[in-house]
Amino acid sequence: MNWLSKFPPLSPSDILGLTPPELAKHELCSAMPQYGFQLTLAPGMDESFVMDRVGGTWILTGGENGLLYAAYSLVRASLSGTALPDHLESRPRYSLRMMNCWDNMDGSIERGYAGRSLFFEGGAFSYDPSRIVCLGRMMASVGLNILCLNNVNVHEPAQELISEMIPELSALADLLRPFGVRLMTSVDFSMPIRSGVGSADPLSPEVQTWWNEIADRLYEEIPDFAGFLVKADSEGRPGPFTYGRSHAEGANMLARALQPHGGTLIWRCFVYNCLQDWRDTSTDRPKAAYETYQPLDGQFEKNVILQIKNGPWDFQVREPVSPLLLSMNQTALGLELQLAQEYTGQQIDLYAMPPMWQELFQDLPSDRIQAIAAVSNFGRDENYFGHPLAAVNFFGFGLLAWNPETKPEEIYQQWIRLTYQFSRENTDLLTSALASSRRIYEQYTAPLGLNWMVNPHVHYGPNPLGYEFDVWGTYHRANREAVGVDRTADGTGFLLQLPKHLQERYGNPKTCPDLLLLFFHRLPYSFVMKDGRTLIQRIYDDHFEGAARACALADHLKHLPFPPEDREVISERADRQLKNAENWRDTINTFFYRLSGIPDAKGRKIYD
Amino acid sequence: MNWLSKFPPLSPSDILGLTPPELAKHELCSAMPQYGFQLTLAPGMDESFVMDRVGGTWILTGGENGLLYAAYSLVRASLSGTALPDHLESRPRYSLRMMNCWDNMDGSIERGYAGRSLFFEGGAFSYDPSRIVCLGRMMASVGLNILCLNNVNVHEPAQELISEMIPELSALADLLRPFGVRLMTSVDFSMPIRSGVGSADPLSPEVQTWWNEIADRLYEEIPDFAGFLVKADSEGRPGPFTYGRSHAEGANMLARALQPHGGTLIWRCFVYNCLQDWRDTSTDRPKAAYETYQPLDGQFEKNVILQIKNGPWDFQVREPVSPLLLSMNQTALGLELQLAQEYTGQQIDLYAMPPMWQELFQDLPSDRIQAIAAVSNFGRDENYFGHPLAAVNFFGFGLLAWNPETKPEEIYQQWIRLTYQFSRENTDLLTSALASSRRIYEQYTAPLGLNWMVNPHVHYGPNPLGYEFDVWGTYHRANREAVGVDRTADGTGFLLQLPKHLQERYGNPKTCPDLLLLFFHRLPYSFVMKDGRTLIQRIYDDHFEGAARACALADHLKHLPFPPEDREVISERADRQLKNAENWRDTINTFFYRLSGIPDAKGRKIYD
Repeated sequence: MNWLSKFPPLSPSDILGLTPPELAKHELCSAMPQYGFQLTLAPGMDESFVMDRVGGTWILTGGENGLLYAAYSLVRASLSGTALPDHLESRPRYSLRMMNCWDNMDGSIERGYAGRSLFFEGGAFSYDPSRIVCLGRMMASVGLNILCLNNVNVHEPAQELISEMIPELSALADLLRPFGVRLMTSVDFSMPIRSGVGSADPLSPEVQTWWNEIADRLYEEIPDFAGFLVKADSEGRPGPFTYGRSHAEGANMLARALQPHGGTLIWRCFVYNCLQDWRDTSTDRPKAAYETYQPLDGQFEKNVILQIKNGPWDFQVREPVSPLLLSMNQTALGLELQLAQEYTGQQIDLYAMPPMWQELFQDLPSDRIQAIAAVSNFGRDENYFGHPLAAVNFFGFGLLAWNPETKPEEIYQQWIRLTYQFSRENTDLLTSALASSRRIYEQYTAPLGLNWMVNPHVHYGPNPLGYEFDVWGTYHRANREAVGVDRTADGTGFLLQLPKHLQERYGNPKTCPDLLLLFFHRLPYSFVMKDGRTLIQRIYDDHFEGAARACALADHLKHLPFPPEDREVISERADRQLKNAENWRDTINTFFYRLSGIPDAKGRKIYD
Repeated sequence: MNWLSKFPPLSPSDILGLTPPELAKHELCSAMPQYGFQLTLAPGMDESFVMDRVGGTWILTGGENGLLYAAYSLVRASLSGTALPDHLESRPRYSLRMMNCWDNMDGSIERGYAGRSLFFEGGAFSYDPSRIVCLGRMMASVGLNILCLNNVNVHEPAQELISEMIPELSALADLLRPFGVRLMTSVDFSMPIRSGVGSADPLSPEVQTWWNEIADRLYEEIPDFAGFLVKADSEGRPGPFTYGRSHAEGANMLARALQPHGGTLIWRCFVYNCLQDWRDTSTDRPKAAYETYQPLDGQFEKNVILQIKNGPWDFQVREPVSPLLLSMNQTALGLELQLAQEYTGQQIDLYAMPPMWQELFQDLPSDRIQAIAAVSNFGRDENYFGHPLAAVNFFGFGLLAWNPETKPEEIYQQWIRLTYQFSRENTDLLTSALASSRRIYEQYTAPLGLNWMVNPHVHYGPNPLGYEFDVWGTYHRANREAVGVDRTADGTGFLLQLPKHLQERYGNPKTCPDLLLLFFHRLPYSFVMKDGRTLIQRIYDDHFEGAARACALADHLKHLPFPPEDREVISERADRQLKNAENWRDTINTFFYRLSGIPDAKGRKIYD
C-alpha cells in the first residue's frame, strides 16, 4: 500500500496529453466530488498557489504546477480527513525538488532495497506505464518536480540515454509531464571519448561542441528536459582532474551546453579523488569536499548547482551539517539526502527520516539552497518501497522539500490516514513508532556519532573494524583506553570548516551534544558524560536500551491492524530488525568490553 | 610460460584418436629424438611402469596410462637436464589424481585468479581446443588422470551437463582421452526435482531410477566417464538432510547408479549445515565434519569416496590434519587440496604449496587415502595461472600425488629447468624464493595458526575482526589479555578427535609447535614461547620479519632474468605483494597493540 491507496484510480490513458492544470481539475473532480472548483492559471506564479473556499466551491489560482500542487494539497487533506483552511497561500521553499534514482540499465539498483528498477531491464527501457503513472502521481502529490532516472555511476549502456535512446526517454517524459515532473539523466563526463572526440577535456572546443550538439538534439525532442546530473572524479569516475582542470571548468562546460535550453547542470560534490591510508592521521576525509570546492566559490555558471550531501561523510545515521552547505555564498547549492536506507536499516529496520532532515534544516539558513534531491527508495516491489512503512520517507521528503518547517508528526499522521484505515488510537501508535524509529536504530548501532561500524560493501549489520583499516578514511581508532578522532582545532581541524556558532556548539566535549560527541572528539572510556555516566557505560546502556526498544517496536508493529499484504511484510521485517538489533547490541558491547575490560555497571550480559 | 615451454609443439590434430601409449611414443620420439624406444603394453600394470635403458634405447613396459607416465617422466628428465637412472620402476600412490575446477558455465570461476573459464562462456561450452590439449598435456605430464569440469556449487545451466549437454561433454572427453585424463562432473543432488520427479529423496525408488537412467545414457556416450562429485547440505546446497536421510544414504544412491559402469561417486565432506552464532562458545566448527561423518564409517558403497579437505577449517595457511582423514578405516577416502590461492595470496602473493602438503603427508599413513584432488588454479589467462610462478603448484601437486615423498626442492628445480633458461645460480635463487614463500606469507598474515583475519568474501588482505562476529564459526576471541580458542580437552575438545600421538604433540602449549599454537590454545599475550619471547613479541617479530622478507623476495624476483612476458607480470605482482605485506604487518600489529597496550620491545613503528 502507499498513500495513494484512497485516491481514485488513474490510468495512463487518463493522463496522457493533459497539462498539469487539466490533471489538477481531473484529480479534484474525481477525489472531491462534493465540491465545485474554479481554477485560474496565473503563469507568473509558477509553482505557487492561492486557494480560497467560497461556500461549496474552491477557487484556486496558481502557475502551471502551482494549480497541480494546490489540487494535491486539497486532495491529501480531504482524503486524510485533515481540516482545510478557507484560505491558503503556498509556495515551495526550493525550486528544484528531485528524486535521484540510482537505477542501472541492467535492471539493478545501486543501494536499492525494493526490488529491481521500475524503468530498466536487460540494458533497455522496460516498464509498466501504469506504474510510471503511479510514480508520477506519488511525486506530484507531495510536490516533487524532477526525476533523475539513472545511476550517477553511469554504467553501460546508460551513456546512450541522451544520444541513442532519446525517443524512449521522450516517451517516458510524456507519462510524467502531466504531473509536472521533468526528466533528468546522469551523464558520463568521459562520454565524448567513447563517441570518437578523443578527449573529454572541458577546455577543448571540440568537447564543448560535442556536448552542445548533444544538448541541442535532446532538447529538440524533449523541450522541458531538466538537465544533467554529474558525478566526476569520485570512486573511479572520470572527471576534469584527468585533464588538470578544476571542477568549475568541468561543470561550466556542461552548463554552457544546457544554457540555451534553460537546462540545469547538477554537479555532485561527493569528491575524494585520493583514497586514504589508515596509517595517515593527518588526512581527515570529512574535510575533503570543503577543501575541493570552497575555493571555487563564485566561479560557476549561473545554471550550475552544486549538490552536496547533508553531512561530510556519506549518509550516516548521525552527522553534523556539511560545512560546504554553509560556506559558498556565491554559488547555487543543492542538498542531497538519501531515502534509500543504505546505512539506516536497508528497508528491513524501521527508520523514519523526517526528524533527521529537520535537525539539518535547523542548521541551514532558509535562503541557503536552491535545490533538494533525495536518492530514491522505490523499486519494482509490489509495494514500491520494500518495507511498506518506508513509503513515509518518500512522502515526508516531498512535504519537507516544499516546506522544511512541516512537523514530522503532521507528516506521519497525514501519511497514515491516507494509507490505512486506522482508529485514532492506532494512528497515534504508529505515529509514535515512526517517531521513535530513528533513535532506536541509532541506539543499537555505532555509538554517539562514531558511525561506520558496519559490514563493508553491504552496509547492513555490525562490523566494528569493518572499515577501520580500509581506504575510505573512516577510522575510529578505538584502543584499550579511548575511542574517536579529535576533529577540533587541536586535532584534524574539521571543526574549523564550520561557522563559529557550530564550532562553539561542538568544540568542547563537556558541552558538545552527546549524540555527536564521538564524531568530534577522542575520549577515554572513563569520560564523564553530562548526565554523570561514563562514556563506556553510556555505550552499554544505549545498546541494551536500543535492542530492548527494537523488541518493543516489533511487538508494537505486529499488533497494528495493517491490511494482510502489508502485515506479512512488516511482521517479517520486524523480526529481522529485532535479530539485527540484538546482534548489533552484542557485537558493539563485546567489542568495547574486550578493548576496555570494563564490565557493565548493571551486570547485564556482555559476551566475552 | 609453463613447464611445457621446452616440449615440442602438439596440436589437437596430433592427438585426436590416439591411445595413451601411442601418444607416449609420439611424445618420446619428438622430444628425445636421440634415443630409440621400445614400448610394451602390459594391461595388468595399469598406471605403473618399468623403464630400462639399454644403450641408446629405452625399453618401457607398463599399462595404458603407465606407458604415458613413463614417457613423460623421461621427457621431463631429459628436457630439464635431470640425470636419468638406467632402471626405474614407478607406480602412483593414489589411484585417482584429480583436478577439481570450480568453473561456472557463465564463464566465471569461483575463487579463480587466472581469468575466466577455459571451458565455458555465456552458459555454454566455449573453448579453444589447442588450450584443452595443453591442459591435458600439463595434467598427463605430471601424472594427473581426472578432470572434474564444473563448480561443486552447481549453478545454472551446469545441471544439464549430464543430460542435455552429453555430446559437448563427449567432444571434450575426446580431446583429453589421449592424455589418460577422464572427465568427471559436479552434480546437483536436487536435480531430479527440476526434472519432474518431484523429489530428490535418496530412498525414493523413482529417484534411484532417474539417476540410473541418467548414468546409463551418459556412459553410453562416454564409456570412460570418471563419475560424479557432489557437495550436498553445505552452504545452501540441497542434500539428503532435506529428506531426513544420512549422507551415506545420499551417496550410496548415486553410487549405485554409477556402479554398473565402473564410475566413482565422490562425496565432499565440507558439510556444516548449521551456521554458528559467535555468542555460542560450545560449538566449534572444526569439529563439525568429524561429528557428521565419523559415525557413518563402513556404511558407504564400495565406489564411494569421501573427499575431505586437508584441514578442519577451509584451506587456511596453517591447520592441523583433518581428524576425519585419520578416523574412517572402513571407508574409501580422498584428500582435497586447493591450488587456487583463495586464502594464500590469490596468485598475487607468491606461495609455493609443496612444503605445506608434505607436512600433511607426514601425518597421513600411506595407505590411508585412495584419491587426491586439488581445486584448480588455472584459467583463460595467457599464462594459465595468473602468476607465472603459480604454475609450480599445479606441477608440484601432480608429482606429489604420484609420490608424496618427492622433495619440494626437486620439484622446484625440475619445474624451473623446464620453464626457464636459467643459470644454475639463478635456478637456485628461484628455488630458494619458492621454498621461502609460504613461510613469508604466513609470517605477515594471521599469527601462529589463528587464521581467518582476512577481508570477508574476497579473502585477500587483513581484517582482524572480519569474521569475528560472523556466522562461520571462525572466532579468535582476542581481548586485552589473551587470544585464541582452547581446543584441548579443557576447551572445545576438538583435539580429542585426533589420534593420541597428535593429541600429545598439540595438547600442551609449552610443547605444541609454535606455528599451530593459537590454533589449539588460548593464551595471554605474556605467554612465554619456547625461545623465551612473549607471545605478543613473537607476533610483532613475525610481522616485521614477514614484511621485510616479502620486500627482499620482491627484490629477488625482480632481478631474475625471466622472459619479458613473465617478467612484467611477476614484477607487478611482487609490488602488490609487498604492499599487501606491509598492510598486513601494520594492521595485525596495530590490532594487537591497541588490544594489549604492550609496545614492541625493539621499538619499531607500530601505528596507534
